[in-house]
Amino acid sequence: MAKWVYSFGPEASEGDASMKNLLGGKGANLAEMCKLGLPVPAGFTISTELCTYFYDNGKKYPEELRSQVETALVLVEEAVGTKFGSSENPLLLSVRSGARASMPGMMDTVLNLGLNDITVAGLAAKSGDERFAYDSYRRFIQMYSDVVLGVDHSLFEDILDDHKEDREVFLDTELNAEDWKLIVERYKKCVSEELDEDFPQDPEQQLWGAVGAVFSSWMNSRAITYRALHDIPQSWGTAVNIQAMVFGNMGDDCATGVAFTRDPSTGEREFYGEYLINAQGEDVVAGIRTPQQLTIHGKETQGSTKLAMEEVMPEAFLELDKVRDILERHYCDMQDIEFTIQNNQLFMLQTRGGKRTAQAALKIAVDMVEEGLISETEALTRLDPASLDQLLHPTLDPDAERNVILRGLPASPGAAAGEVVFSSEEAVDRATSGVPVILVRVETSPEDIHGMHASKAILTSRGGMTSHAAVVARGMGTPCICGASDLRIDYAQQLFTVRGQVVKSGDFITLDGATGEVMLGEVPTLNPDLSGDFSKIMEWADKVRTMAVRANAETEKDAEMAISFGAEGIGLCRTEHMFFEAERIIAVRQMILAESAEERRAALEKLLPMQRDDFTKLFAVMAGRPITIRLLDPPLHEFLPHGQEEMEEVAAAASVSVSDVQARARELSESNPMLGHRGCRLGITFPEIYEMQARAIFEAVALLKKETGEAVTPEVMIPLVSMPKELAVLVDLVRATADKIKEENGVDFDYLVGTMIELPRACILADAIAETAEFFSFGTNDLTQTTYGLSRDDASSFLNEYAKRGLIDQDPFQSLDPKGVGELVKMAAEKGRSQRPEIKLGICGEHGGDPASIDFCQSVGLDYVSCSAFRVPIARLAAAQSALKANA
Amino acid sequence: MAKWVYSFGPEASEGDASMKNLLGGKGANLAEMCKLGLPVPAGFTISTELCTYFYDNGKKYPEELRSQVETALVLVEEAVGTKFGSSENPLLLSVRSGARASMPGMMDTVLNLGLNDITVAGLAAKSGDERFAYDSYRRFIQMYSDVVLGVDHSLFEDILDDHKEDREVFLDTELNAEDWKLIVERYKKCVSEELDEDFPQDPEQQLWGAVGAVFSSWMNSRAITYRALHDIPQSWGTAVNIQAMVFGNMGDDCATGVAFTRDPSTGEREFYGEYLINAQGEDVVAGIRTPQQLTIHGKETQGSTKLAMEEVMPEAFLELDKVRDILERHYCDMQDIEFTIQNNQLFMLQTRGGKRTAQAALKIAVDMVEEGLISETEALTRLDPASLDQLLHPTLDPDAERNVILRGLPASPGAAAGEVVFSSEEAVDRATSGVPVILVRVETSPEDIHGMHASKAILTSRGGMTSHAAVVARGMGTPCICGASDLRIDYAQQLFTVRGQVVKSGDFITLDGATGEVMLGEVPTLNPDLSGDFSKIMEWADKVRTMAVRANAETEKDAEMAISFGAEGIGLCRTEHMFFEAERIIAVRQMILAESAEERRAALEKLLPMQRDDFTKLFAVMAGRPITIRLLDPPLHEFLPHGQEEMEEVAAAASVSVSDVQARARELSESNPMLGHRGCRLGITFPEIYEMQARAIFEAVALLKKETGEAVTPEVMIPLVSMPKELAVLVDLVRATADKIKEENGVDFDYLVGTMIELPRACILADAIAETAEFFSFGTNDLTQTTYGLSRDDASSFLNEYAKRGLIDQDPFQSLDPKGVGELVKMAAEKGRSQRPEIKLGICGEHGGDPASIDFCQSVGLDYVSCSAFRVPIARLAAAQSALKANA
Repeated sequence: MAKWVYSFGPEASEGDASMKNLLGGKGANLAEMCKLGLPVPAGFTISTELCTYFYDNGKKYPEELRSQVETALVLVEEAVGTKFGSSENPLLLSVRSGARASMPGMMDTVLNLGLNDITVAGLAAKSGDERFAYDSYRRFIQMYSDVVLGVDHSLFEDILDDHKEDREVFLDTELNAEDWKLIVERYKKCVSEELDEDFPQDPEQQLWGAVGAVFSSWMNSRAITYRALHDIPQSWGTAVNIQAMVFGNMGDDCATGVAFTRDPSTGEREFYGEYLINAQGEDVVAGIRTPQQLTIHGKETQGSTKLAMEEVMPEAFLELDKVRDILERHYCDMQDIEFTIQNNQLFMLQTRGGKRTAQAALKIAVDMVEEGLISETEALTRLDPASLDQLLHPTLDPDAERNVILRGLPASPGAAAGEVVFSSEEAVDRATSGVPVILVRVETSPEDIHGMHASKAILTSRGGMTSHAAVVARGMGTPCICGASDLRIDYAQQLFTVRGQVVKSGDFITLDGATGEVMLGEVPTLNPDLSGDFSKIMEWADKVRTMAVRANAETEKDAEMAISFGAEGIGLCRTEHMFFEAERIIAVRQMILAESAEERRAALEKLLPMQRDDFTKLFAVMAGRPITIRLLDPPLHEFLPHGQEEMEEVAAAASVSVSDVQARARELSESNPMLGHRGCRLGITFPEIYEMQARAIFEAVALLKKETGEAVTPEVMIPLVSMPKELAVLVDLVRATADKIKEENGVDFDYLVGTMIELPRACILADAIAETAEFFSFGTNDLTQTTYGLSRDDASSFLNEYAKRGLIDQDPFQSLDPKGVGELVKMAAEKGRSQRPEIKLGICGEHGGDPASIDFCQSVGLDYVSCSAFRVPIARLAAAQSALKANA
Repeated sequence: MAKWVYSFGPEASEGDASMKNLLGGKGANLAEMCKLGLPVPAGFTISTELCTYFYDNGKKYPEELRSQVETALVLVEEAVGTKFGSSENPLLLSVRSGARASMPGMMDTVLNLGLNDITVAGLAAKSGDERFAYDSYRRFIQMYSDVVLGVDHSLFEDILDDHKEDREVFLDTELNAEDWKLIVERYKKCVSEELDEDFPQDPEQQLWGAVGAVFSSWMNSRAITYRALHDIPQSWGTAVNIQAMVFGNMGDDCATGVAFTRDPSTGEREFYGEYLINAQGEDVVAGIRTPQQLTIHGKETQGSTKLAMEEVMPEAFLELDKVRDILERHYCDMQDIEFTIQNNQLFMLQTRGGKRTAQAALKIAVDMVEEGLISETEALTRLDPASLDQLLHPTLDPDAERNVILRGLPASPGAAAGEVVFSSEEAVDRATSGVPVILVRVETSPEDIHGMHASKAILTSRGGMTSHAAVVARGMGTPCICGASDLRIDYAQQLFTVRGQVVKSGDFITLDGATGEVMLGEVPTLNPDLSGDFSKIMEWADKVRTMAVRANAETEKDAEMAISFGAEGIGLCRTEHMFFEAERIIAVRQMILAESAEERRAALEKLLPMQRDDFTKLFAVMAGRPITIRLLDPPLHEFLPHGQEEMEEVAAAASVSVSDVQARARELSESNPMLGHRGCRLGITFPEIYEMQARAIFEAVALLKKETGEAVTPEVMIPLVSMPKELAVLVDLVRATADKIKEENGVDFDYLVGTMIELPRACILADAIAETAEFFSFGTNDLTQTTYGLSRDDASSFLNEYAKRGLIDQDPFQSLDPKGVGELVKMAAEKGRSQRPEIKLGICGEHGGDPASIDFCQSVGLDYVSCSAFRVPIARLAAAQSALKANA
């Protein structure tokens, strides 16, 4: 008989932390904590396999489930010494979902299950606190009705608000037992009216309803969206954790809190957390009351006036601090824990790996290596390369003027500016049209995930560092300021005020997530300063990785920045970027307007010294590091002006008529420029262009050699090859030019000639192409465009719809499509090596900075990846992880 | 020791017809004729291997060549009874190139080699004809100087013209021995002046000079262009044929001629040829004198007033007629022969398979089957499927008014109209910009190949049916009229006159190549009537082929035409073609301008009955034959108007403002529409469009079933799929729609849903796609565009240059690229079948009508090809040939 239910408790646990797939993260860790002897209320987990069974069998349970649950329930009753449904000594339960991967805020929770009109009296008697009992009951009705019965929770909030208004009070704590009794009656009436049936009084019925609701919530649209965004398969399913309730809201010797074993924002080895006296767990997370700090240090740092737990409940705090130590030593990682203090007694409700900022992740990883908790390679695998991005982004210029209008909690670091928007829909809309937006809300909820993704930063007026907004923003690496209590938002008027100052939708503000400051307007930013931990991690990564990391760069400045980020060379120097500078665009246009090869040569003569100078400077910066230089790629019409005025300028400069310029522009215009007269096709039809470029490169090499004796080995790259013959012809041209320059200058030098592999046909014929190509650089941007038949410039109009409908997991331009594009890359790598075993293989599309794509590159054995300078550290770490994975 | 030289002659021959690769076509057939006992002047062939050696070894000969040539020369001297270089009895030689494949007019020829100031006297004495001897000598000097020494031949023509003017005569025949002696001296002087050295007097030196010139001519630009155009590898090389001269110009009992064993224009079993009394072979081919007919029948048919050879030289004619019969029975094919009559004695100088019109090829093939010469399958393999195109093109409407201004020889059949151009350069220029042109020249030469290719028809004032213009035009399938002697061309004024009537460059004329008539203006044409021979061949082809042939068609008219050409179904019905008709484009545009799915649905409601009606009619015509219907493919902006006026019309019709229409057009415009929001991407984002189309199809099926009981099995095709999920979603939509319509109408019907495979990613993931696709139809147009990264609309600007530089053998849009695109097709076919063994595979790109591509389709095992209606017969024959080849 299949086993669906796994018990845990102080006596014994059937699960442990290794059983996450079966029990979900929460269930496995509850069992593990029991094994560690930590105080965990008894309970049991219904496994994820049941979720799968449930959906595979028309939402039915297996017969044996009921008896297994009953058996487990008895164990809980025995451990706690209460009885489910008892009128005197009722066992109350929490029912929580718990999937394999953390899905924060996505799944619904029910507390205080087992209460009804009878057991509530038992609870009141047993606790000696009628107010507590009815408050618990009304919480249960509200939660259960919302989550299980589908009654809109705002109805309950309205009832409560109305009552408080009648009673002229502001805080829930000001209400007494009679108030809650009245409210319970009103809640039940509301349910009856909404559903045409009474709120269920039978605890059994309540339990099975809650279990069903958890499983059903696995397929609600928020969960589906979250899984789509995080690439979690539906088949994983969720578990259900059913656990004896403990109460943080049974009086002033009770409390509830959440904590991180280290500071999740900085990574400092400080116990970091918040708690609320006389409250249930949901109160902390929901951000309804602004919570108090756990430690005195925390209180001081935050400038809070409220007492720390360390002061209020010193004994419970000490016990909690011990648990913190045990958990860190056991898991060897920073933990995110939930606890409840019931009558001064500590209960652990959850532990899991804590979300942290990139900065914190880095510091924690490095510190833990130094503390001997983990190894260097473990530190490497534990970091999310993409999250390094946060450390590499600009911060506010400290010298810039700041008009600080508001302060809040520094919930997620990083600085960003954008237009104020007040709803997630608007955030998505305006971000889609390219506007940077900052989402301003009273508080956020799982419904806001899309809007938060679309925003540059998030600002809320309510909630603490562990509120929904803070947790999710940190996970996303989005700057966030929470609990800015001076912020008054008027959704209807689409504006907010701060002590009389009005900021409207569409106004620019700047957030500094590291300080919690909100500024009016757009404040200038500075490039990040990379800390010691960062360079330590990079050093470890460099020891481990087998692929080189290069940067895409054209200018001296870019190249210097790339080197500062650790780039080992330039993987893509796009020569056409050099064509756009003011003085030379004229010569470029003259070249394009030329009517014969001779005229074209004359214009190219003017460009030659400029290009040579570019390369001389670049070679000097790169100091012998490899540089892949791509010859002219874009179609010529990209260099022609479009406006009348500019046309006139060009005509004057080139001594031709405006109508000639227009005619040439018309002649060059293309239906599908992406598939047009560009890349090596220009080299074939206008060989004098490529000849000039090759000359500029080699003359720079010769010059450097003669002047400084330094040898540069440039890698000359021919783009957009689809036929082996195209490459052969152009390689001949490049080699002939090199020979001439060696002779003219009387120096010898080495160089490579190769090609960009960016068309499906080039992949298929890679063996024939490798006959002349000494290296391949995969141009996966264009390869993705042609393999999918998808124009990057035009795709946004429907790719969003595709993502929404679950047709694509990821934008194939962001992460390399392994099944289609990747298959071609693999084919080309294999065919290239079959022809020329020593062929150098790299990638220079934007995928070169994407960790998943880098992992793919490792799997097909590329020699290097190249990406934008800012992504070089990400690539270094990702390459290290891939190398470790490959060796595992 | 390598053998480089192969002798032939009346005694013995070292070669035969099977040795074409080694001896070239001409050499192999000369040897074969010797073996048949036909009168062939003795000679020898230097093999094509020597040509390869020559180019592989820096244009040097192997040492042993000289002695082998000397030995062979002795054999010729012995056979003929003369001696090379003898002052009394000199052996004269012809030196001709002869490659493996016929390269008409491409290679240079030298006659009368061996003549010098001394041997010419011997020739005069021996022949007793001093005039003949010196005429031969001046011909030799002229030819040798032109071909071997590179002296411009017009210099010699000027000398001759000047002399004739001085002597006040018009014809060469009016010149006597003294004239020729004088001219010889002037020619020699001219050579000395031009080259600073004397014309070579040493026969040995002459011989090696000529041999070298032949090998060198293999790499001249005309030869390179011809090879590029006809896909002949350079490595094949040419042979050199050295043969004892016989003379057609030694008096009035001498003649020279060319003939076809059957009429090359109609295929009639009539001996067909031309000859000139007292002339050398080059005179006939060059078209300088208009030749006489071989037979009385020919004379009468042509309305010639000159005597036929049959009348003038009855004995020699009878012998020639016997040779004709022997050759036809031996080669089992129509032969193109060259002969010379020397003093009433017949010598055969060449035989080869004769070029013929498509009509003639058909008739000859069918006749030869009936004559028992060849089998049905041999008849099939002998026809060039592409040439059938000529039979399928329109002819002049017999009822149309014709203003015939000129008559010439009907050199190549077919009718065409176009603007008059007078040079090949202009023909190419204007044709490139889309203007139909007719090339009008006095005569054509190999330099005109490009211009002839670009022209719709060719008209010359000089030359006969075997002139350069006629032979090349027939090979190209281009209508041609030759020897229109009333035509007076004034190149300088860019006009021609016919008896005072002036026609200028750019004026429209119409040619009927079948009758030789030239008409002013554009005369309406009629669709071709397919003759009995044609249908016989088609019948034989249908018996043999294994692939089905379908047509691409949308309208009833197209479908009827397709069936008349033998199409077995429709392989591609492009539903969007139905969208452009006047009444419905308004509804289409309303749909595009709709701002919501509801508005879109309302517009689609209007389209539904129209589309349903289209399908009802089409199904009726196709009478149960399969029809593949492609759902909407092009991007929506293609349906929007561009001009202001039209915009206003649309705005009015759709009750929106013009600026709304403009805004929508801007919104929909794309950088690369080919890779944009089209195909199934429309189906995903606007499912209501595909739903309407599926509804229209299935309602038509249901209607037909209910009204007539006839069952149609439509094949619904989803275009531009790149992801298996895309297809799955849309297949679900189509199936759900079919289910609804079955229920609504209470009828059942069958249908297939499949996809167009036209993107590289679809090929790579074809197995996953075949999970839902019941058929694949390869859209090789788009697959070629994406595999090459090549926009068909933009490629002409550089593909011509690619062809010129030998980078591409063929336009990949005309003939499927087997190495790249083909590899993907093969992969997709294999993967598709691996998932779904019974999957139906076809091709519907324009390659479906190209014989080489059809052969490829056979090789990967497609079930059918689909092409435009006019190419269906070509496809039927090509498919038969491919099936025969596959079984061989």
